[in-house]
Amino acid sequence: MRKVAIVGAGITKFGRRDANWRDLVVEAGKALFDDVPNLDRNEVDSLFVGSAYPERWANTAHVAPMAAELLGIKPRRIVAKVESACQSGAIAIRYAWLSVASGLSDVAIVLGVEKMTSKFMNLTQSTMYIVGDREFDTVNGFTAPPFFAMVAQRHMHLYGTTREQLAMVRVKAGEYGSENPYAQFNRKVTMEEVLKARLVAPPLGLFDCSGITDGAAALLITSEERARKYTDTPVWILGGFQRTIHNSINEAGEIADWLSLRQLAKDVYDHFKITPDDIDIAEVHDCFTISEIVEYEELGFCKKGEGGKFIEEGQSYIGGKVAVNPSGGLLACGHPLGATGVRQAWEITMQFRGQVPRKRCVAGAELALAHNLSGLACMHSIMLYSLKKP
Amino acid sequence: MRKVAIVGAGITKFGRRDANWRDLVVEAGKALFDDVPNLDRNEVDSLFVGSAYPERWANTAHVAPMAAELLGIKPRRIVAKVESACQSGAIAIRYAWLSVASGLSDVAIVLGVEKMTSKFMNLTQSTMYIVGDREFDTVNGFTAPPFFAMVAQRHMHLYGTTREQLAMVRVKAGEYGSENPYAQFNRKVTMEEVLKARLVAPPLGLFDCSGITDGAAALLITSEERARKYTDTPVWILGGFQRTIHNSINEAGEIADWLSLRQLAKDVYDHFKITPDDIDIAEVHDCFTISEIVEYEELGFCKKGEGGKFIEEGQSYIGGKVAVNPSGGLLACGHPLGATGVRQAWEITMQFRGQVPRKRCVAGAELALAHNLSGLACMHSIMLYSLKKP
Repeated sequence: MRKVAIVGAGITKFGRRDANWRDLVVEAGKALFDDVPNLDRNEVDSLFVGSAYPERWANTAHVAPMAAELLGIKPRRIVAKVESACQSGAIAIRYAWLSVASGLSDVAIVLGVEKMTSKFMNLTQSTMYIVGDREFDTVNGFTAPPFFAMVAQRHMHLYGTTREQLAMVRVKAGEYGSENPYAQFNRKVTMEEVLKARLVAPPLGLFDCSGITDGAAALLITSEERARKYTDTPVWILGGFQRTIHNSINEAGEIADWLSLRQLAKDVYDHFKITPDDIDIAEVHDCFTISEIVEYEELGFCKKGEGGKFIEEGQSYIGGKVAVNPSGGLLACGHPLGATGVRQAWEITMQFRGQVPRKRCVAGAELALAHNLSGLACMHSIMLYSLKKP
Repeated sequence: MRKVAIVGAGITKFGRRDANWRDLVVEAGKALFDDVPNLDRNEVDSLFVGSAYPERWANTAHVAPMAAELLGIKPRRIVAKVESACQSGAIAIRYAWLSVASGLSDVAIVLGVEKMTSKFMNLTQSTMYIVGDREFDTVNGFTAPPFFAMVAQRHMHLYGTTREQLAMVRVKAGEYGSENPYAQFNRKVTMEEVLKARLVAPPLGLFDCSGITDGAAALLITSEERARKYTDTPVWILGGFQRTIHNSINEAGEIADWLSLRQLAKDVYDHFKITPDDIDIAEVHDCFTISEIVEYEELGFCKKGEGGKFIEEGQSYIGGKVAVNPSGGLLACGHPLGATGVRQAWEITMQFRGQVPRKRCVAGAELALAHNLSGLACMHSIMLYSLKKP
């Protein structure tokens, strides 16, 4: 297996954009190519597109060769579009990493893109409805907000987590998101705003939920041999795993325990011979405020049940035990499904390069973790990134 | 890179099935598990689902973890759904092969599945409409049948290919398909039937077109170390590449030349140090009769322009230069998008094991090629399979 690095990264402004799926691809592509002036596009032999539902939201199917044409590349090794709902971008990175590590591909582009907003938001909603198990779960009302609300209620019941602790996650997201010009909601948010916002599903209010977002991000990935041609600061992809042990809620067991993630995290730490203490930056999937609190616990940053205390003590801020979501996370950046995982890798790349605003820069960071989930927390993935060559 | 083999294979009956997406997964899974009695499902660490558009045709998204639950597996390495329209299954195999070859995965299932038929066939049609470039091509009428009809017209004009030669491809498909109980159209078809059938897009009639089909197929893939646990006849995946050099028809150049495929085939043959003469079985993407004729040429089985003569001389029959589509191909088996590529690998596995009816058995075959295309012939892939260990 060859060593693999991210050697270029580009992103679009996230938000409710006056741009279609194609426009977003072109914009992220231009940002990537601007970041890697030494790239001859003929060198790109593979393309991995993470995009969840363009077939519904952009009324466009078979998007991978379309994206290749829009980017002006003619891939000759692998071209694929991968879908895994909210973690589609992360899975595209995984595929690219494997293809370069194995020697099949030398220079690959990963493109994460999603166009979610339209004049007809019921199109967005009707698709999110089928991300859960339509026949067993969402038909009974278990779409994402009620599900995560129930996780929050259960967590409060079992562990004494408070409404205020949930809100603190959003305040942190706003603090860092206000320093991220690409974030959909790039402004600070007060505790009062979060607590007084319109209820979505109790206890979660509007600010406890990530947005419906358009956006795209792109990475250039290559092997050790070629990395220095494109950048002085390659970001090494160490790798990672995925895990799913259930799909429908019937099989989920205790919903405040995310067993898939706990087992996955242990597996990754053991495999790479690290501990949670070694992680400097964690970009985690805070689709809702409660998600980040459960993730603190299952990722081993604190004990089970102490996630609320962890944010309250400021341990997930820069300067705390681990800097969680210095980008602003999904809560501030918004969550264009296919783009989110790629946006996380973009953030880690910019952090390692020292190219983020000072207030959200994690000085001295060398090891980062990216976590994504999809569906009703039924599938999780972790990728590790290192500034030091492995 | 580890050596990788197919060690189990299962398939469903293809056709207009009274079964939904989930039913097809369960049926293919059962067929696979029956084929590998020594498998403990806990050994399966990864799942790769090739399924083009369940989000539209089955109104079900995020199908990979759902399929895992239906199969009774709890993957802990990779779980992904890949989409590449008509070659979604082939790309899923490629991903599984890479993950096992690289050592990330030890035992993986590849599942190809598509539910295309319904009471509302305009749902099927409206989705096939967006597989081509909706804004540039299909809006002008360039859906698949007119596009391939125009390829046929152009091929007839340039090379003197005849209507009868096109029909001969369908007659061959029926001859072998009649011996394949899993095929959608498993009966012989006469020249007269093909020539007198209702026109779809001149010169292509109903029998020149592959079907709208429900179906699924599944493979068990593992490394050399474990292969003998599951089977005495592992089928080795040598690998292969993909290529796309255009998406919209504007950029296609001469449409009777499939330059992407010609370059891809050369690249694959050079890389694996073989020639077209070494191929014993070719399962190729005969979505229309003309497709197979162009593929004879671009795959190098005959000279450019001589594809019509090649079928007329019987060179693509078993016993000819190369046995092309002894399964009956897409024309007889039908074409459930995500299942087709996996069905090809299933066929090759059964051929190498000698588990197909005698009349369509390619005796002594040791090297097989599978070809798929997607969209308006804008993207191609090739995979090579070997009975002899590489």
